[in-house]
Amino acid sequence: MEFIEKVRERAPLIHNITNQVVMNITANGLYALGASPIMAHEKGEMIDIVNIADALVLNIGTLTTAVLESMLIAGKAANKKGIPVVLDPVGVGASKFRMRAVKCLLKTLDIALVRGNGAEIFTLATLEQSGKGVEGNLEQAPREIAKRFYERYQVTVVVTGTEDIVYGETGVYLLKNGTELLTKVTGTGCLLTSVIASVLAVVDNQSYVEAAAEAVSYYAIASEMARKATDLPGTFQVVFIDKLMSLTREEWDDMRNFEVITLCLGENG
Amino acid sequence: MEFIEKVRERAPLIHNITNQVVMNITANGLYALGASPIMAHEKGEMIDIVNIADALVLNIGTLTTAVLESMLIAGKAANKKGIPVVLDPVGVGASKFRMRAVKCLLKTLDIALVRGNGAEIFTLATLEQSGKGVEGNLEQAPREIAKRFYERYQVTVVVTGTEDIVYGETGVYLLKNGTELLTKVTGTGCLLTSVIASVLAVVDNQSYVEAAAEAVSYYAIASEMARKATDLPGTFQVVFIDKLMSLTREEWDDMRNFEVITLCLGENG
Amino acid sequence: MEFIEKVRERAPLIHNITNQVVMNITANGLYALGASPIMAHEKGEMIDIVNIADALVLNIGTLTTAVLESMLIAGKAANKKGIPVVLDPVGVGASKFRMRAVKCLLKTLDIALVRGNGAEIFTLATLEQSGKGVEGNLEQAPREIAKRFYERYQVTVVVTGTEDIVYGETGVYLLKNGTELLTKVTGTGCLLTSVIASVLAVVDNQSYVEAAAEAVSYYAIASEMARKATDLPGTFQVVFIDKLMSLTREEWDDMRNFEVITLCLGENG
Repeated sequence: MEFIEKVRERAPLIHNITNQVVMNITANGLYALGASPIMAHEKGEMIDIVNIADALVLNIGTLTTAVLESMLIAGKAANKKGIPVVLDPVGVGASKFRMRAVKCLLKTLDIALVRGNGAEIFTLATLEQSGKGVEGNLEQAPREIAKRFYERYQVTVVVTGTEDIVYGETGVYLLKNGTELLTKVTGTGCLLTSVIASVLAVVDNQSYVEAAAEAVSYYAIASEMARKATDLPGTFQVVFIDKLMSLTREEWDDMRNFEVITLCLGENG
Repeated sequence: MEFIEKVRERAPLIHNITNQVVMNITANGLYALGASPIMAHEKGEMIDIVNIADALVLNIGTLTTAVLESMLIAGKAANKKGIPVVLDPVGVGASKFRMRAVKCLLKTLDIALVRGNGAEIFTLATLEQSGKGVEGNLEQAPREIAKRFYERYQVTVVVTGTEDIVYGETGVYLLKNGTELLTKVTGTGCLLTSVIASVLAVVDNQSYVEAAAEAVSYYAIASEMARKATDLPGTFQVVFIDKLMSLTREEWDDMRNFEVITLCLGENG
Repeated sequence: MEFIEKVRERAPLIHNITNQVVMNITANGLYALGASPIMAHEKGEMIDIVNIADALVLNIGTLTTAVLESMLIAGKAANKKGIPVVLDPVGVGASKFRMRAVKCLLKTLDIALVRGNGAEIFTLATLEQSGKGVEGNLEQAPREIAKRFYERYQVTVVVTGTEDIVYGETGVYLLKNGTELLTKVTGTGCLLTSVIASVLAVVDNQSYVEAAAEAVSYYAIASEMARKATDLPGTFQVVFIDKLMSLTREEWDDMRNFEVITLCLGENG
């Protein structure tokens, strides 16, 4: 749990340009984890905010054209500074506007990692507008979706679902913790994206795959422990935030369930 | 509880153009109910989002002129597609801007249902700016307020308060469940509007009055059950979200308390 | 606890032009306290909303240029009407945009009170951009920071931290209640600012210092009582909202811990 522990020590400042639905849970989840959140999206302060930040999250959930412009300014500043930029393509299949925005971000910026559900990553991997209904059918093949995405963009990707995949140049991880109750609380995917950004912010070398896998694993185990306390979503959200703070290395060691599929995409990917 | 059960089966996608205060509780409440929320307000994606949605909610709580423009685009697309448009005129008496916006929406769009408190619906029924203080005085006559609103606009209306009224062409329902603690948690009126939109989304014929009455009743009983667990607002909100998911048909049958005042406005309304 | 009790009696309407992260907790906290929240930021309704409001809160957490314009319109209307305007300079050291905005608000408007943490008030007192890291170092000298701020602006100021200071013309209060867990829940500083605005709204004379000190004390004691129930942030937020409603005069009398340092700045300040 070395990366999470570094987050707790260093309290990296995560600049979130994110959607209005999840700003509150994102900030609270980052505080619980040990990171420091800042939310800002005024064009005129993007460069200053990036200058004090340790990672940048771009989340298109309630994107407007004005905020997209801010994302591009912040993203370029983050690339120049050398801090990781993490992209969450929320509902990218839902509109041409979102698709164009994500394509523009992927083309213009050096994105460290993309995190989405199967439908979102499938849409980006195939450039087919999928809309809403596709999600269910895709649950079977998250690894294949991740592979297609990686082959197209050469960007590390996390696909979340019944099982989670972390797929990048230095390895592929299949992660089996978690609870379906996460899908009944808004913002749990978005918060995971910001949690991943927090660990990338404290990685000293560029081993983003391993760090992201630990973040996904930690998050999923915290959710499993919250699920033991309740099967209802209001209470679950409260206990889950608690567990993001209190989960110990011992609990994590006990419960983690993941496979390293390959450590060298060049040979086996 | 046939309409709520259809929501649970079909998970209709509810497009909420709503205020920034309540986006999070609205999304979580809809998930708990069994519906799927989407929040979006960028003009450039309104038509695409409506194309995948099963109902549209327009809520003016933190309205801006840009978002009003998006509401008109989305509303026209929803009318064309034939999905219900539900309007929540939050604080319509508080400013001329809100009054003009609501008049514009009612005039331009085919609104399936309006949900508001007594002061809001009174303001619209009489076109008198009421401001804040009026609310208390109006509690006595929700049915009269609903009648005056319906006579002016011929739009099905839900007036919430100590008692709730559903008033439309095919019937008038007086509902007596609920708890005053709902008024101490922000967004509970707004979320009810989105819950009503969820049942309208799964109504096969146009019997919106009956479906809306069931939604109001379900919602009020869930709040009563949460009120049994606590009389304080922080805990209440958590348990209420839980109950929106877990309330059973048996509990609903046991507790529901409403009168059907008339089933034919043509004769008795 | 005379001021809090007046809030409960009169339910003042607090107009919050605030950031998107904290709108929900601010509204719920104000309801729990006994005040009435309204959030609005459309330029075209600022004058109408101020006309029905009893106090105005300006919070720059996710400020945009459009919202700054609305703040200036609302602030001028509030000054004209004679209701208190309370400013929260969230993260003012984080960007030149925020610094310029706060300077503009302090210069253009008659601000009744500013509430911030040590780093924010230090930045304003010295006009040195402090960024993020400064916060820790400043914890030692909140009183000195408040004094420097007051000397520059002649505006009553609340500096929150391990200890809290209320500093104004009619007195200086040092308050020692509270819990560090408040720093792990987003929006607790912003909500305090709106709670202070609520008591200023019911002060009959202009003794803002005494009223603000009571509000800070009430808030901190509610947090201490919530802290007795839990040491984790998800549960803490829920119980804290409960306590904002349920804290009694007896509990407050028992637990309050503050010093009146001086009642006359003219002599000793």
